[in-house]
Amino acid sequence: MKTRFLQVLTLGAGLFAAAGASADEGMWTFNHLPKAALKQQYGFEPTDAWLTHVRRSSVKVGGCSGSFVSDNGLVLTNHHCAEECIARLSTPAQDYTKRGFYAKVSAEERVCPGQQINQLGEVTDVTARIQKATSGLEGEAFHQAFRAESARIEKACATSESINCEVVSLYHGGLYELYQYRRFRDVRIVFAPEVDIAFFGGDPDNFNFPRYDLDLTFLRVYEDGKPVSTPDHLSFARTELKPNDLTFVSGNPASTERLLTVAQLEYQRDHALLEHLLSLARYRGFLSEYGERDAEAKRFARSELFGVENAFKALRGRQEALLDPAFFNHLVANETRLRARVAADPKLKPQYAAAWSAIEKAQAREAELHKELTWVEGSGSRPAWAKTSLFTWARLLVRASEERPKKNEDRLEEYADARLPSLEQRLLAPKPLNQAFEIAKLAFGLVALREELGADHPFVKQVLGKASPEELASALVKGSKLQSEAERKRLWEGGKPAILASKDRMIQLALSLDGEGRAIRTRYENEVESVLTKNSELVARARFAVYGMSSYPDATGTSRLSFGTVRGWRENGRLLPAFTTIGGAFERATGRAPFALPKSWLEHQSQLDPAMPFNFVTDNDIIGGNSGSPVINREGEFVGLVFDGNIHSLGGAFGFDIAHNRTVAVDARAIAHTLDKVYGASRLTTELGTAK
Amino acid sequence: MKTRFLQVLTLGAGLFAAAGASADEGMWTFNHLPKAALKQQYGFEPTDAWLTHVRRSSVKVGGCSGSFVSDNGLVLTNHHCAEECIARLSTPAQDYTKRGFYAKVSAEERVCPGQQINQLGEVTDVTARIQKATSGLEGEAFHQAFRAESARIEKACATSESINCEVVSLYHGGLYELYQYRRFRDVRIVFAPEVDIAFFGGDPDNFNFPRYDLDLTFLRVYEDGKPVSTPDHLSFARTELKPNDLTFVSGNPASTERLLTVAQLEYQRDHALLEHLLSLARYRGFLSEYGERDAEAKRFARSELFGVENAFKALRGRQEALLDPAFFNHLVANETRLRARVAADPKLKPQYAAAWSAIEKAQAREAELHKELTWVEGSGSRPAWAKTSLFTWARLLVRASEERPKKNEDRLEEYADARLPSLEQRLLAPKPLNQAFEIAKLAFGLVALREELGADHPFVKQVLGKASPEELASALVKGSKLQSEAERKRLWEGGKPAILASKDRMIQLALSLDGEGRAIRTRYENEVESVLTKNSELVARARFAVYGMSSYPDATGTSRLSFGTVRGWRENGRLLPAFTTIGGAFERATGRAPFALPKSWLEHQSQLDPAMPFNFVTDNDIIGGNSGSPVINREGEFVGLVFDGNIHSLGGAFGFDIAHNRTVAVDARAIAHTLDKVYGASRLTTELGTAK
Repeated sequence: MKTRFLQVLTLGAGLFAAAGASADEGMWTFNHLPKAALKQQYGFEPTDAWLTHVRRSSVKVGGCSGSFVSDNGLVLTNHHCAEECIARLSTPAQDYTKRGFYAKVSAEERVCPGQQINQLGEVTDVTARIQKATSGLEGEAFHQAFRAESARIEKACATSESINCEVVSLYHGGLYELYQYRRFRDVRIVFAPEVDIAFFGGDPDNFNFPRYDLDLTFLRVYEDGKPVSTPDHLSFARTELKPNDLTFVSGNPASTERLLTVAQLEYQRDHALLEHLLSLARYRGFLSEYGERDAEAKRFARSELFGVENAFKALRGRQEALLDPAFFNHLVANETRLRARVAADPKLKPQYAAAWSAIEKAQAREAELHKELTWVEGSGSRPAWAKTSLFTWARLLVRASEERPKKNEDRLEEYADARLPSLEQRLLAPKPLNQAFEIAKLAFGLVALREELGADHPFVKQVLGKASPEELASALVKGSKLQSEAERKRLWEGGKPAILASKDRMIQLALSLDGEGRAIRTRYENEVESVLTKNSELVARARFAVYGMSSYPDATGTSRLSFGTVRGWRENGRLLPAFTTIGGAFERATGRAPFALPKSWLEHQSQLDPAMPFNFVTDNDIIGGNSGSPVINREGEFVGLVFDGNIHSLGGAFGFDIAHNRTVAVDARAIAHTLDKVYGASRLTTELGTAK
Repeated sequence: MKTRFLQVLTLGAGLFAAAGASADEGMWTFNHLPKAALKQQYGFEPTDAWLTHVRRSSVKVGGCSGSFVSDNGLVLTNHHCAEECIARLSTPAQDYTKRGFYAKVSAEERVCPGQQINQLGEVTDVTARIQKATSGLEGEAFHQAFRAESARIEKACATSESINCEVVSLYHGGLYELYQYRRFRDVRIVFAPEVDIAFFGGDPDNFNFPRYDLDLTFLRVYEDGKPVSTPDHLSFARTELKPNDLTFVSGNPASTERLLTVAQLEYQRDHALLEHLLSLARYRGFLSEYGERDAEAKRFARSELFGVENAFKALRGRQEALLDPAFFNHLVANETRLRARVAADPKLKPQYAAAWSAIEKAQAREAELHKELTWVEGSGSRPAWAKTSLFTWARLLVRASEERPKKNEDRLEEYADARLPSLEQRLLAPKPLNQAFEIAKLAFGLVALREELGADHPFVKQVLGKASPEELASALVKGSKLQSEAERKRLWEGGKPAILASKDRMIQLALSLDGEGRAIRTRYENEVESVLTKNSELVARARFAVYGMSSYPDATGTSRLSFGTVRGWRENGRLLPAFTTIGGAFERATGRAPFALPKSWLEHQSQLDPAMPFNFVTDNDIIGGNSGSPVINREGEFVGLVFDGNIHSLGGAFGFDIAHNRTVAVDARAIAHTLDKVYGASRLTTELGTAK
């Protein structure tokens, strides 16, 4: 799974998980692991030292996960999590995506522009402060108070540029915690294999199993020009992983929505997922054909196409789960039961009974606002039509010039002081753009905008005027200098006067559209988001009052631990085994992309052990964001690298089906074996302690 | 609306319409028009002579409609209905799509390759024969008996190549009629305007209003090299059309599904429409970008893109109607009421009560089979991956060689004797292909096939082997000579020996896949189609037993008449007027496609009357297939040319909403005015009798 693309559907706050969860279900916080259940089921109770060691060995790599695997700051994550770095360092003459990357000596390790790695440090309960600040508030007032208090807390915590702080809402406001991260901003690439083996099977095999992928990249964190010392790290296992072994996965699952109300699930099924899928499908057709223009076009379109294909499959899986009557009816029955319990209790009824219908009304309002929000403001860094980083930068610069002079707590949340350093780093990191590609993407987006809102919509008229989408896209891209880091820096530092004086077409456009975007966003926040936040919290509390707190919070992109076992599953009456082998990859290869093994593998086939385990599945409960997570045995050793879930894992956003939902990982033994036999990466195998 | 693309979702047989239909609702057969209601509501009762005249003046133009508008075989239909003809006659040097076409003298009228026009003649009730032949039969036996008896009846009826016969099922088996058509196979083009005005506003304005389109083409039918005499034709109106005037629309609505059961509607909403939309969206992105390769690519991709955009919008409209809780709940309530009446009646219950659950089971089976049916066999002339006419021809040739030697009644229905002449004409008509486009489309389709069924599916392995989609597509297209009419003719005439001896790659592929296609089709016919046919008939009869026969049958692509009035509608609280004017087109023009007026219009603007009515809307009940239908006043005169429905008309597949559902037409006065002032088409205005 490639979770960066899954985060758009996040509702932003967790909910209590269902009571009566099946064994192995759950993305637990490290401080509330159900140790008793674990001991009873597996005869294993992790010590606090074990848990602290695992937690401190785990890191967040952008929207992915990873782990330290040496005491010299070496980080292991997925190839697809470092793909942007690899692409940015590539040139037509030296394409690291295609050929792989290996720094034979330390000096050859290269900086990944804009890449950050965060290691979770202290966790502080700030529930009382947040609840006090928001007490009795609703709607925009609640939202603003929460934002302001969070911003204050985060600012006080972020005492240096190498510290990153975030107020995290768990159990949907049942618990607020301040997460303090150590932030590494000098991240260098050490090793990446060829994309042909990192993503063997490509989109056809994505979310499938059996699988044969070496989806890994080694990075290293530096400070002051030297590798950081990392005493907390995972050693490669010295024991052999077998079926039914207990496995832990440590990582940062981005988002689950397992306790959405029926109205929210219906909204997802009939509106949000559907519209997103239709729009992704069209963009995908465009990108795949764009890549046929020439080799340069292919190089630029590849990464974006990959993201779109991945998101499409992931969201389609979610939608299919919601369209499955058995799955959906089960969730309906859960809600009916809880509402009946609340209605029958004279103490609970007045506090909570109205929450469900309030959510239902807010969802109806969201259905009305959704399209305009998407196309005028967007739910992320830009509206849906503005498919170019040039606009992302332009809007960021325009808004930052407006927001930074304000008091911290009055700003749009993404411009709060605690978030500015990452924002600035992302803005100023070099990112090569291809002019033709930017124009084509933007023209595509403008055509879609006109269709979605209609040619007569005031916003469409404001954007397009009398120009055709193609003309406008070309004029905007050619009339912008934002591809230059220096120009972005100048405007970032120049603030409002520089923005107002700028003749840059993209800046001027972002400036002229800013009011419309803020207006629809404010309506959405007040009429939808704050109502959902408030009432989801009520539903969560009602659930807590009825069932007690025996479960895990929904995923929110923060540090979690899941436990499970190595095992296959039954598909169409056939048992799929838990492991594939390196020999299997050679059998499956056709010599044609995406089933073409790289030259290095073909040349070293005779040195490889065909029986060596390659990929495996476990029933750990994971979701997008867990990409790059280590799989850990009871000794706290590294036994595998999570890189995907099977097709049934996609419904995991809404519920966990232990019979079918599987985590897919690269076996640690295959990593050590191929580093040695295929890549001759002795510097790495020595550092990992796997050299023979 | 461009109905050729809407027919894929047809279930093949009509159902009784709901009792209690609103005024103006209904696509009536000419022989069961509710004259009493018409008289009561509008004080107008058409005579039998009026009805016969209108029916005989109306024609079927491929999947569209049209009418005779002179006594010399002149046919008026939509530009988008003749688009394929116009494109086929075009060359890079002489692009009639772009520049328009006008035969200044008779000799310049050019044959439209493969185009047929059918005029409905005699209609005979054959209910007794069909019911006798299928009496007591179910499943495959029913299907086969129905097919065999229909084939016999049609064969006996089709006494010459200029007669085309079809057994039509109305009221879902309540009535079977034999329709005898006079078939015109020499169709020539007389006049077509530039696509810029025929489709002004393009995809953004499609299914929208206000509208400014001259979506028309004049054709002429010939026999023995001479124009056919057509005493039954519509004269251009001599009176002015006004708001609230009574209007009739005569045409061939392709398919409505207004009496589907809830299980069938859910299947449409959650499976058929959804999967089709996702697949269209992706193909659309591909086609739009393919057209950017170069001018030649744009020319070839344009027509296909147009069809895909249109189908997407149309199906999305249907889906939105089904996702509207009010609309859907209304249909659920209708069914609940009917089932309760049946359950409460001791005579009806044993006959009909089980039909709904039988349908529900068949729909569940269809949901399981649907994907394989779509990708292995397809519901039309080819499976979903085979996006090239080369494969369509190959499969047709392979199957014809297998089917033609069989007894007529044992054949697959599309190879029955009565259908062979059209089949042969379509097969042998010249159709220029662009090799690069065929390869790109086929490669796109093969990638989608591998994804949809999975790389390990036996059919995918059989098709692809170890080749990549791009390699295989290229080898197949380059290894086929089927683009030559002569080669197709040779294989058609050579039959099985010629097919078996052929080294043509596309023929060999079609041959090797034929068994798989037939197998899944047989399963679908036996386990789904025949169960649905049988039980839908039971539901229809139950409805008839409860409510009586006071309504119209679902559309089935056969001749229908609807009545209504000229009127606008309320949208977001604002009343949209019924007429637009020629002046409005100039105001809306931006000079950029799709809002660029053609040069001819800009040059003649001063001679045009800006107040002249251009397009208008009525509340006639129409659907895809009515494209090209005449709008007729009570005098039986031509007052307009139907070319679209508004956005609300798209839910018309499942129900009629008189408050919003509108027919969109070109005003007859705008046709006469622009033929005169813009095109100086005096030969035409003289023939139409509109010359001043």
